[in-house]
Amino acid sequence: MNTITIIGMGLIGSSLARRIREAGLAEKVIAADHDIDVCKKVVELGFADEVTDNLAQSVEDADMVVLAVPVGVMGKVAQKIAPHLKDGAILTDTGSVKASVIEAIKPFCRSGIHFVPGHPIAGTEFSGPESGFSTLFEGRWCILTPLPDVSVRAVEAVTHLWEGCGSKVEIMDVKYHDLVLGITSHLPHLIAYTIVGTANDLEDDIKSEVIKYSASGFRDFTRIAASDPTMWRDVFLSNKDAVLEILQRFNEDLTAMQRAIRKGDGEYLYRRFGETREIRKAIIDSGQA
Amino acid sequence: MNTITIIGMGLIGSSLARRIREAGLAEKVIAADHDIDVCKKVVELGFADEVTDNLAQSVEDADMVVLAVPVGVMGKVAQKIAPHLKDGAILTDTGSVKASVIEAIKPFCRSGIHFVPGHPIAGTEFSGPESGFSTLFEGRWCILTPLPDVSVRAVEAVTHLWEGCGSKVEIMDVKYHDLVLGITSHLPHLIAYTIVGTANDLEDDIKSEVIKYSASGFRDFTRIAASDPTMWRDVFLSNKDAVLEILQRFNEDLTAMQRAIRKGDGEYLYRRFGETREIRKAIIDSGQA
Repeated sequence: MNTITIIGMGLIGSSLARRIREAGLAEKVIAADHDIDVCKKVVELGFADEVTDNLAQSVEDADMVVLAVPVGVMGKVAQKIAPHLKDGAILTDTGSVKASVIEAIKPFCRSGIHFVPGHPIAGTEFSGPESGFSTLFEGRWCILTPLPDVSVRAVEAVTHLWEGCGSKVEIMDVKYHDLVLGITSHLPHLIAYTIVGTANDLEDDIKSEVIKYSASGFRDFTRIAASDPTMWRDVFLSNKDAVLEILQRFNEDLTAMQRAIRKGDGEYLYRRFGETREIRKAIIDSGQA
Repeated sequence: MNTITIIGMGLIGSSLARRIREAGLAEKVIAADHDIDVCKKVVELGFADEVTDNLAQSVEDADMVVLAVPVGVMGKVAQKIAPHLKDGAILTDTGSVKASVIEAIKPFCRSGIHFVPGHPIAGTEFSGPESGFSTLFEGRWCILTPLPDVSVRAVEAVTHLWEGCGSKVEIMDVKYHDLVLGITSHLPHLIAYTIVGTANDLEDDIKSEVIKYSASGFRDFTRIAASDPTMWRDVFLSNKDAVLEILQRFNEDLTAMQRAIRKGDGEYLYRRFGETREIRKAIIDSGQA
C-alpha cells in the first residue's frame, strides 16, 4: 500500500494511524479531520505524514481511504470525498452499524471505487486523537461485511490492513452483524447509560454516596457510560430496529425479575442467577475475558 | 482480641480469616461452616487454627463472632449459636442488606451480647473458600450500622477489625445503607443478571457469536452476573422495597430512552449520554475507579 488516508481523528482513527506508521503498513499516512483544532493536535502528536482539514483534497492520492467518523455523518463525508477518489481506490469504514452506513455510503461509490464496509470491535471509554494507541486492535476481532459485487482483491487488502493491526478478521452478513452487535454492544451501552443516568438524577447528597460506594457494582457501568455521546447517539439512531427488538426482550425479562422480587419468588431468581454463570464461563474459555 | 470465630467460609469469610491470621488481628481464628466439604477444604487451605461444622460449639470461646453467611440464613444461624455465646461476646455480620438482617438476628441477642451489624463493600465474582484472599478488603469501605443501644466499645472493636483488614470504616443509618446499596450494588447486579439472561435465552448459533464478540460491552456485565446466586437471591428478597423503588425509576428512564430511539430523538439521546460522563469523572477523582 502506498498511501492511506484516514478521515476522523478520534480514538479509532488515531489508533489506526499510529499502528500503520509503527508497523509500516503503508508508505504514507494522511490524517484528515474537519475540525482544525483536532488537526493541530494530530500535528503535535506527530503520528501522520500529512494532516489536513480539507477532506476532499486528503483522498486525492490515496490507495485506501478509511472513514472513522461517527455513523451519522458517514454519508455526508462520503459525498464530499467521492468525486476526489482515484479510480481503483479502496474505501472502507469503521462504523459500529453496517446496514445504515452502507445505505449512506454506497450511492456515492461510482464504479471503479471498491467499498468494503468494516467494523473493528475495539475501543475504550476515551475519545479524541490523544486517547488513541497503536495496540488498540491487537488480538481483537474486526468484522467485514462486503457486498456481493465487490472485488476479492479489495476485501483482501482491507483484511491485510486489519491483520497488520493485530486483529482477527471475520466476514459477516450485514444484517446479522447489526443484530449480533445490537446484543453484545448496543444494548449493554444503552443499559449502562440509563442506569448511570438514573443515578445522576438522584438528589445531591445520595449521589455523593453513590460515587463513594460505586465499587460495589455501579462503577463498571460508569466506564461504559463514559463513552462518546455523539458516536453512541448515532449508533442507536442507525441500528434502531435491532436495538428495539432486543430491548423488548430485555424489558420482558426485567419485568419477570421484578415480579419475582415483588412476589418473593426465590426459586425463580436462583434459577435465573445460576444460568448466567455458563455464559461467563464460555467467555473465559474462549479467551475473551 | 483473643479468639474470633467466623461462620461461613465463602469468599468473604475465608478472606477475613486469612487476613486476621496474616495481620495477627486475633490470637486464634476458628472457621465454621455447616458444609463438611467446605470445612475439609479450609483444613487443606490451612488459614484457620480450628475448623468445625458444629456452629454452636464454634462460638463458645469466641470474643467476637462474624456471621459471613447468605443474608437469608442469618437469622437461622443466629438462633443456633446465640445460646452458646459467652457473656460480653461481640457479634457482627457481613450481610449486604442491613434492615432485614438486623430484624433476623436481633431477637436472639440476649443482654450481654453486643451486636454490631456490618457490611464490607468488597467482593469478586468468585465463591467458596478457595476464592478468598487476604487483601480483599484493602482500601475498600466497610459500613457499620450500629443500633442506638449498643456499647461504644463493641463498635470500636469491630471498627478495629476492619481497619486491620485495610478497610475504611463508615457509620451509617440502617435504612440509608439499604437505599444507597440498592442503587450502587443491587440494581446493577439485577440489570447485569437480566441482560446476560436475555442473551442466554437466544438461539445457540447467535449465542456463540455473542460470546465471540462479548468484548464490545457485554463482557463487563457477565462478570457481575457470575456472582453467587444464593447470596444475590437473598439480597433481592431482603431489600425488596429499596430495589423495587430504584428499579421503578430505572424503568421510567429506560422507557424514555426507548421512546427517543423509536422517535429518532437524537437531541435527547445526546444530552442523556453526555450527562453520565460527569459521574464517571467524579468516581475517578475520588479514587474509586
